[in-house]
Amino acid sequence: MIKVLLIFTLILSAFFTVSAQDFQTARRNLMPVPANIAWKNGRLPVTKNFTVAVSGKTDERLKIYIFRVMRRLEGRTIFEFSRDLSTDAANASLLIETISTGNATPKLGDDESYNLEISDKQAKLTAPTTVGAMRGLETFLQLLEGDKDGFYFPAVSISDKPRFPWRGLMIDSARHFQPVEVIKRNLDGMAAVKLNVLHWHLTEDQGFRVETKRLPELHLQGSDGDFYTQEQIREIIRYAADRGIRVMPEFDMPGHATAWVVSHPEIASAPGPYKIERLPGIFDPTLDPTNEKTYKLLEVFFAEMTALFPDAYMHIGGDENEGKQWNANPKIQAFMKKNNIKDNHALQTYFNKRILKFLQKGGKIMMGWDEIFQPDLPKEVVIHSWRGQKALAEAARQGFTGVLSNGYYIDLMFPASQHYVVDPLPADTTLNAEEQKRILGGEATMWSEWVSPETIDSRIWSRMPAIAERFWSPREVNDVEDMYRRLEVIGTQLEELGLTHRKNQPILLRRLANNQDISALQTLVSLIEPVKEYRRYQVRPQTMLSPLTGLIDAAQADANGARKFNKLVSNRNFSADSTKLKMIFSGWKNDAMTLSAQIEKAPALSEAKQLAADLQSLGGIGLEIVEMLETRKTSGAEWRDAKLKSLTEIAKQKAGLEFQVIESMKVLVNATSGN
Amino acid sequence: MIKVLLIFTLILSAFFTVSAQDFQTARRNLMPVPANIAWKNGRLPVTKNFTVAVSGKTDERLKIYIFRVMRRLEGRTIFEFSRDLSTDAANASLLIETISTGNATPKLGDDESYNLEISDKQAKLTAPTTVGAMRGLETFLQLLEGDKDGFYFPAVSISDKPRFPWRGLMIDSARHFQPVEVIKRNLDGMAAVKLNVLHWHLTEDQGFRVETKRLPELHLQGSDGDFYTQEQIREIIRYAADRGIRVMPEFDMPGHATAWVVSHPEIASAPGPYKIERLPGIFDPTLDPTNEKTYKLLEVFFAEMTALFPDAYMHIGGDENEGKQWNANPKIQAFMKKNNIKDNHALQTYFNKRILKFLQKGGKIMMGWDEIFQPDLPKEVVIHSWRGQKALAEAARQGFTGVLSNGYYIDLMFPASQHYVVDPLPADTTLNAEEQKRILGGEATMWSEWVSPETIDSRIWSRMPAIAERFWSPREVNDVEDMYRRLEVIGTQLEELGLTHRKNQPILLRRLANNQDISALQTLVSLIEPVKEYRRYQVRPQTMLSPLTGLIDAAQADANGARKFNKLVSNRNFSADSTKLKMIFSGWKNDAMTLSAQIEKAPALSEAKQLAADLQSLGGIGLEIVEMLETRKTSGAEWRDAKLKSLTEIAKQKAGLEFQVIESMKVLVNATSGN
Repeated sequence: MIKVLLIFTLILSAFFTVSAQDFQTARRNLMPVPANIAWKNGRLPVTKNFTVAVSGKTDERLKIYIFRVMRRLEGRTIFEFSRDLSTDAANASLLIETISTGNATPKLGDDESYNLEISDKQAKLTAPTTVGAMRGLETFLQLLEGDKDGFYFPAVSISDKPRFPWRGLMIDSARHFQPVEVIKRNLDGMAAVKLNVLHWHLTEDQGFRVETKRLPELHLQGSDGDFYTQEQIREIIRYAADRGIRVMPEFDMPGHATAWVVSHPEIASAPGPYKIERLPGIFDPTLDPTNEKTYKLLEVFFAEMTALFPDAYMHIGGDENEGKQWNANPKIQAFMKKNNIKDNHALQTYFNKRILKFLQKGGKIMMGWDEIFQPDLPKEVVIHSWRGQKALAEAARQGFTGVLSNGYYIDLMFPASQHYVVDPLPADTTLNAEEQKRILGGEATMWSEWVSPETIDSRIWSRMPAIAERFWSPREVNDVEDMYRRLEVIGTQLEELGLTHRKNQPILLRRLANNQDISALQTLVSLIEPVKEYRRYQVRPQTMLSPLTGLIDAAQADANGARKFNKLVSNRNFSADSTKLKMIFSGWKNDAMTLSAQIEKAPALSEAKQLAADLQSLGGIGLEIVEMLETRKTSGAEWRDAKLKSLTEIAKQKAGLEFQVIESMKVLVNATSGN
Repeated sequence: MIKVLLIFTLILSAFFTVSAQDFQTARRNLMPVPANIAWKNGRLPVTKNFTVAVSGKTDERLKIYIFRVMRRLEGRTIFEFSRDLSTDAANASLLIETISTGNATPKLGDDESYNLEISDKQAKLTAPTTVGAMRGLETFLQLLEGDKDGFYFPAVSISDKPRFPWRGLMIDSARHFQPVEVIKRNLDGMAAVKLNVLHWHLTEDQGFRVETKRLPELHLQGSDGDFYTQEQIREIIRYAADRGIRVMPEFDMPGHATAWVVSHPEIASAPGPYKIERLPGIFDPTLDPTNEKTYKLLEVFFAEMTALFPDAYMHIGGDENEGKQWNANPKIQAFMKKNNIKDNHALQTYFNKRILKFLQKGGKIMMGWDEIFQPDLPKEVVIHSWRGQKALAEAARQGFTGVLSNGYYIDLMFPASQHYVVDPLPADTTLNAEEQKRILGGEATMWSEWVSPETIDSRIWSRMPAIAERFWSPREVNDVEDMYRRLEVIGTQLEELGLTHRKNQPILLRRLANNQDISALQTLVSLIEPVKEYRRYQVRPQTMLSPLTGLIDAAQADANGARKFNKLVSNRNFSADSTKLKMIFSGWKNDAMTLSAQIEKAPALSEAKQLAADLQSLGGIGLEIVEMLETRKTSGAEWRDAKLKSLTEIAKQKAGLEFQVIESMKVLVNATSGN
């Protein structure tokens, strides 16, 4: 019986193995892919007479959202549309019907579903709430296509809703301050891919970025003058709400707290004085949980912040407190003994429970990283997991809700494909249905050790849409190749929102090249990526005050040229592709020689010297291989060993950068064996 | 005797004809070129230990300016410098000595001079004022060079001061609103090329862009919600002052006034109602100079605005009032008769004199376009000339000061070379020394009929540095080739300020190409320019609400590819350059074919169909010519006539775009005659 079932399953999966072309047809350029799509015959043409009408409950937020969507449609089509809503619902090109406006300030669990029916005559978007309509409008914009007959929307029936209610991007404005316009354009990008939570990391060892009116010494002494005024914060919250996005602040404590104790050394667990931290890493300064002064100050602080931020959730961090100051402080040790607090974790829980009261007083639900997890906390507390699905599942099993960030650390420079396959609730979960509901979703984390306002978009938007799809779309949407295809298209659309993820790279390269042509440099940068995980500081140390204008800052995750090359090699049609390969390798070689000469005139590129030499070697090895392939000669083991050894040397990071073509080159070397 | 003198002059000019290479050595990358430069042997190396010290009177403005300059130096060198000023003046890498702080809010005639002495040991910048030091710091940054030994400043002795005290950029925020960040980044660009006046055009037929607290109906009904709050205006003024830039507002009247009379039809010269104008051009709505209500309202308005804007000058426009409403209004005609006002010009002068009182009451000096010129106005009034040097000289002769904008209309899409040779005070001026002093300088005008926040920088910064040089540098600095060389370098440096003059073009092209590769499109756009002068609306009509995302918006003045091609042809080494030419022409042909195919999938590019076909023809004609050159065949007259006729067809604008290579192509066609 089991055998029969297995065979049946195999047959079924053979039926349902979808080719790339099929995905392209089935999913067009939609990202995240909607829950249900049924394509139809026909198309709704877009002319300059395109009109929009609304019916049902329409609030000002929706009208302004429609206005912006229409301007984006104008930008793409070069048509000028009427700026007034049509009063002729029956004949409007797009009719939007909302049943209720929903919450003016978005809340967790808001109904974000929508239906979109497009026929030859009309597109009809219906949604239970304004936010649902916003999500549907983004899908609508992604459906725009064009051919020789003009722009059109394909006929389709879409019924869509998110898989998870919590779909976030965390921006760390603390380590590197990000001005208001950076946050705003990122909120626009978030709305375009249906994200609904900005988790705003506002305090750190390296900076205290929120204005407090009651305790102004905190931001004045803890920020180098780079902080958000409360007016700016309200502006951001409003801007986010207008796009159906919640703003949840994080005030990290009791660790990651150096910037707090610059002005208030008396609440630290060791005597000061303290200075704003300039290095990356984990640091000792920790708030003193045994000192009533700490709670007095935090009570004032949270009273102010719970009033400033309307969202129901407030994040208190809680991560990476190594407790060194606690261990070394006899007063704290005595307190623990006296109060029967058995270890630092228990002490942190004691602290958290005190903080919880301030949050509850302000009407907030507490959220914190894995470390805050403690069975006797109220069950509504949200566990934010950097540790992984298991830790998260364990919390869910114990009745807590949770959000996954492990696997979505976009600061670590992994490719989109890697993030894409991480599921907050994997198919093999052992959680029961009720427990599964406690997995609220996920958040990508943009920790800002090494991003400036000039580069941050390139770190986020190269991969964020793939993660957004994981949070929104059905689990079964997981074809990596098709994800990359759509990512490219969405990347272009995101540029219309002012995001700089593509356009700032040439600027960095031009500056580095010291007014020389950058095409050779572009070839190099398309093949290399910054070192992954936390290696950057180890191999190329800088501080939080250092310029982020090096080649490593221009380089991006998912290096484009490498990805294309690797795909070509993976086809293993070496003979058929030998002309292509030859062109690529001579390109590498020539560009490497150009670049080596240019570096002599561009001191900021001096750290790329070895990379240029390596690129020349790669081109040289490649040309040798192509010649063998073309002449059908085979290589000897000695030759291959020598080349593989060279490749292993080339694979090593230089200036914090690594070639991404090494494995493919090894495949090619081995292909010359004739086997 | 005259003959001898002439010969002597010829000999002299032969001596002083400076080669391009000499300019390159003499002027390096300085722009504007300083008044006096003496290069020396030696260099001041830049290491991570680079320090800055100050002495004399140093205000907070200068300290913050130094801070920003050091961050820019860090960005270029990837060094992290100390953020503190050094206390060791003798050993600081850069010592800045200012004698006085000067005016905290810049004023016309502020001393902007500076001296910069760079030796192996130290750079010393001395200036009588903070603003002078700012100008010197920009020169200092431009001096940074690099080679295989690293970054350095060449040893030099520079003594510099501006030729003209009024060096402006007018930004029209009325026809297309430009958000605060656009103005700010343009102020940064202005400071980088030593401009000192932002002339801010704030009211027009198409928009009323300034918040008034006393008459809020003006901005609320006249702006579609796009206006600057007074807080934002103060922020801009402060931002400009921190860069040594004056902000002079313009409130254009009595014409160009539609946006005024939307809320106040009673002060128009014909009955309303009025709507915000959406078209470009000259319109009838004109304030009624015979109506006391007009003056009552303007008195309130100017009382508020003269307090809001600290600059001593206020611009009242006054241009292009055709008086049609005046002619048609019997009440106005009767008023003129009764008061012995002989014509519309006299009536406008009557109006101006009434306005002048409001300005004077607020402590302001009036400025207006040519039309306000009238001998019995107070002599301190500034005449702003769009008519030209003659009109300006005439005003100067009559005792008025003046500023030239004729020749600097950067909205008209002429090349930098054309603006560069226009001199506010040409060598052949007939003004005497005293009269010459009345020529205060010039202003480039960025009228905004056809610019959006996305494209405005590309219209300004492609040519502005050349005009800034005309306003600052000695008259004799006028080598066009060397100007273009330096413009390229400065263009890269301006990108570090966030200016988008280069980086937004690929975005526009990617959007137009509908997710197809843009390299073919880039070839086309590098050879074409938008039609010049005011032809755009005639050949490709749009309104102020239309999207500015067409190919015409991506195209720029001074098309780069065309300029390079024309230079190659101008060398007339056709045989030697035939390989280069062949590559260029096959590139055109191939790219044209690619593009024609792409257009089928990109409806927004459909207007480029004929341009792509033309490009293919150009490539084809070119290849025919190259073959003749290579085979030393000559063409017949019939062939040449046919090709010249084709070229004349191709030269015609399509979609508002014109090929810039036609004259060179004609030269090549004629070169095949064998003569």
